[in-house]
Amino acid sequence: MARIVSVQATDVRFPTSLTQDGSDAMNKDGDYSAAYVVIRTDDPALSGYGFTFTIGRGNDVCVLAAEQRGLPLVGMSVEEVVADLGGVYRHLKSDSQLRWLGPEKGVEHLAMAAVMNAVWDLAARVAGKPLWRLLVDMTPEELVDVADLSYLSDVLTRDEAVALLAELAPTREARVAELAETGYPCYTTSAGWLGYSDDKLRRLCQEAVDAGYRHVKLKVGANLDDDIRRLRIAREVIGDDAQLMIDANQVWDVPQAIEWVGALAEFRPLWIEEPTSPDDVLGHAAVRRAVAPIGVATGEHGMNRVLFKQMFQAGAIDYCQLDAARLASVNEILAVYLMARKFGVPVCPHAGGVGLCELVQHLSIFDYVAVSGTLEDRVTEYVDHLHEHFVDPCVVENGAYTLPSRPGYSAEMRADSVAAHTYPTGAYWAGAAGSSGA
Amino acid sequence: MARIVSVQATDVRFPTSLTQDGSDAMNKDGDYSAAYVVIRTDDPALSGYGFTFTIGRGNDVCVLAAEQRGLPLVGMSVEEVVADLGGVYRHLKSDSQLRWLGPEKGVEHLAMAAVMNAVWDLAARVAGKPLWRLLVDMTPEELVDVADLSYLSDVLTRDEAVALLAELAPTREARVAELAETGYPCYTTSAGWLGYSDDKLRRLCQEAVDAGYRHVKLKVGANLDDDIRRLRIAREVIGDDAQLMIDANQVWDVPQAIEWVGALAEFRPLWIEEPTSPDDVLGHAAVRRAVAPIGVATGEHGMNRVLFKQMFQAGAIDYCQLDAARLASVNEILAVYLMARKFGVPVCPHAGGVGLCELVQHLSIFDYVAVSGTLEDRVTEYVDHLHEHFVDPCVVENGAYTLPSRPGYSAEMRADSVAAHTYPTGAYWAGAAGSSGA
Repeated sequence: MARIVSVQATDVRFPTSLTQDGSDAMNKDGDYSAAYVVIRTDDPALSGYGFTFTIGRGNDVCVLAAEQRGLPLVGMSVEEVVADLGGVYRHLKSDSQLRWLGPEKGVEHLAMAAVMNAVWDLAARVAGKPLWRLLVDMTPEELVDVADLSYLSDVLTRDEAVALLAELAPTREARVAELAETGYPCYTTSAGWLGYSDDKLRRLCQEAVDAGYRHVKLKVGANLDDDIRRLRIAREVIGDDAQLMIDANQVWDVPQAIEWVGALAEFRPLWIEEPTSPDDVLGHAAVRRAVAPIGVATGEHGMNRVLFKQMFQAGAIDYCQLDAARLASVNEILAVYLMARKFGVPVCPHAGGVGLCELVQHLSIFDYVAVSGTLEDRVTEYVDHLHEHFVDPCVVENGAYTLPSRPGYSAEMRADSVAAHTYPTGAYWAGAAGSSGA
Repeated sequence: MARIVSVQATDVRFPTSLTQDGSDAMNKDGDYSAAYVVIRTDDPALSGYGFTFTIGRGNDVCVLAAEQRGLPLVGMSVEEVVADLGGVYRHLKSDSQLRWLGPEKGVEHLAMAAVMNAVWDLAARVAGKPLWRLLVDMTPEELVDVADLSYLSDVLTRDEAVALLAELAPTREARVAELAETGYPCYTTSAGWLGYSDDKLRRLCQEAVDAGYRHVKLKVGANLDDDIRRLRIAREVIGDDAQLMIDANQVWDVPQAIEWVGALAEFRPLWIEEPTSPDDVLGHAAVRRAVAPIGVATGEHGMNRVLFKQMFQAGAIDYCQLDAARLASVNEILAVYLMARKFGVPVCPHAGGVGLCELVQHLSIFDYVAVSGTLEDRVTEYVDHLHEHFVDPCVVENGAYTLPSRPGYSAEMRADSVAAHTYPTGAYWAGAAGSSGA
């Protein structure tokens, strides 16, 4: 069996700030980037690919952290790794010196996500299955064994977790067959970036409706008059029956969030996303009580499972938007899905950025098939950017992610894309006057 | 006036893992380290010094992050910086690309602390005052202007903060005079590291009593029988009237914390420190309800002011142990002190590590003089390690920190210490078989 010979991380950046793709009230000039990890084995045909997502400066800090975090993998046999994906996770996580720098948050946690995403990609490739199928083929006990339930036993025990999964295990294949027909429903954020003109907003909303989307999301929070004007345009174009979501990207204090969202209530948003600090569990709970029936959504900056545990305990959110490259891979994400199921909160993963859509499609499919068993109130983010850089890009048809079929986690980037966009030495950055220079 | 010409960070590590100094149930082999920042100006006699504290591997990641974070300072005039310490803080914090990597937590926040600690050291040197005196000489309005109150307005408005400080302003100098006589009370953790033998524990407890300490802290959480034996020894030596504190360093889930602390109740600990994940506000609140009258203390891993806000709102802690190198310097620490005052929670800062004692003495003195006005239930940590590496080391006499008198934040390390312990090229690491290699 093959052995792991290296874990290498690369600083890949795309110059998205030039077009204001991705602009919002907090993040005005992001250069969408990936700390891109490749686990190489002594079998040239077998590697694992993963990444975490950043928006530019500091991507090099994540690269350094990811290479350090991945070092213990070097020399391990692939067989050993894929046979104990819970043990490998715990081993990488157990470095007490690195733990001090979080614990389990910030750069070190992003780096852990990048490395473990690559481990899961490797495991799916060894199994010859797309990641969602690898997970769907695991028993409830096997899934719970890889889930990180530490610090969670006050709300979810191992036995409860197994029981939740066992309930739906007999009917998994029926839901796989259903999704093979319909795909997993998604919504688009591509229309609503703050830096776009009214005309572009109107055109993109119309294109979203024409493409079959039933949900459209707009960025808000920089200027109330602008928000009212933009929401009016969007509501006109998408009609009364489609759903409109709004996203403030953490710009408000709690009282301000309540006031501002109140001023936008006439446009009947389904949810307000990131109304305040992502760390503020009690703040989200207060906003939720005040703005109902408008829902509260957050999670793309939800740092770890302990944060989500409290969001559920406090009744702070209506929608859980976990992030596949911020939580420490499937091991931690499984724990959040299990808690969400117990508390009855729908998970609508964050996506966009670089490659997040490629990852979350696997998670959402697995969720429906094995954890939640329902599509009610579920819709996964989709942003039509940067997919051309991936070897196995996600495919969205009629407002739904189609089922990935190639082995792996769809995380591998095209070699030519990586080479051109490696920062600062790749052809793009060496040639262009890039805006991302630190 | 001078101009800032460089912000340089150095990876300084001390081989503390060799002697098990600092060993606890979570952190078994730390090499106490500092990502050490020097802000140089074009005046060779004027520099600012600061750091964040880590326990070894990953210190280089903090160094890289600190150099990036400090770049906007280069070229600024020192006059401009010291005249607007709130503005400088907000300017460094406003980098939206770096914000994505937290926000305000983990490596990026540690780096922000290191840089801004050096800015505050520089400001105190320019004023020719020790940091505590620089703060004591600021008006309530000036203090609130530099405090980071963002995301806090649901519990503390600017006007409330000014009013809290104004109440004690007229009597500040009386308390300065009092502390000049008595010093600020501290307790020692030097006795209780987990890796020490029973004989060494007994001897160190006796030495603590002999040195005038009224509080002794022991590490717990690895083995219950060991904990019972060690607490019995400590209680025998220090007697019934002195205070015994215990510290689990986050090793327990919530139900386990409640059970374990219950089994140690006969030794009447004043507080249980870090019973579970430092992120778990609701978990700490549950532990606190269950183990009363034993108090709950946490904060050395308290990531930012939003976490502390919730700890106060939820009634989760009896003692707030903020960390001077994890929170983003005086700007953020001031906000936590103000909230603690409003909620009536005593602040007993975390110290030890490398240089934390040097920093927190300034904060505790300022707290008594200008914010809390009381010493009741207050005691600041002191660990007698590594002070020899500092130019202006703290001085503890009869269980109390004496008032620092030299200009600055006492953060400057000796040049020979930095040179010898720079990792991995300094004389110590190049010559020794260091244990900290990543």
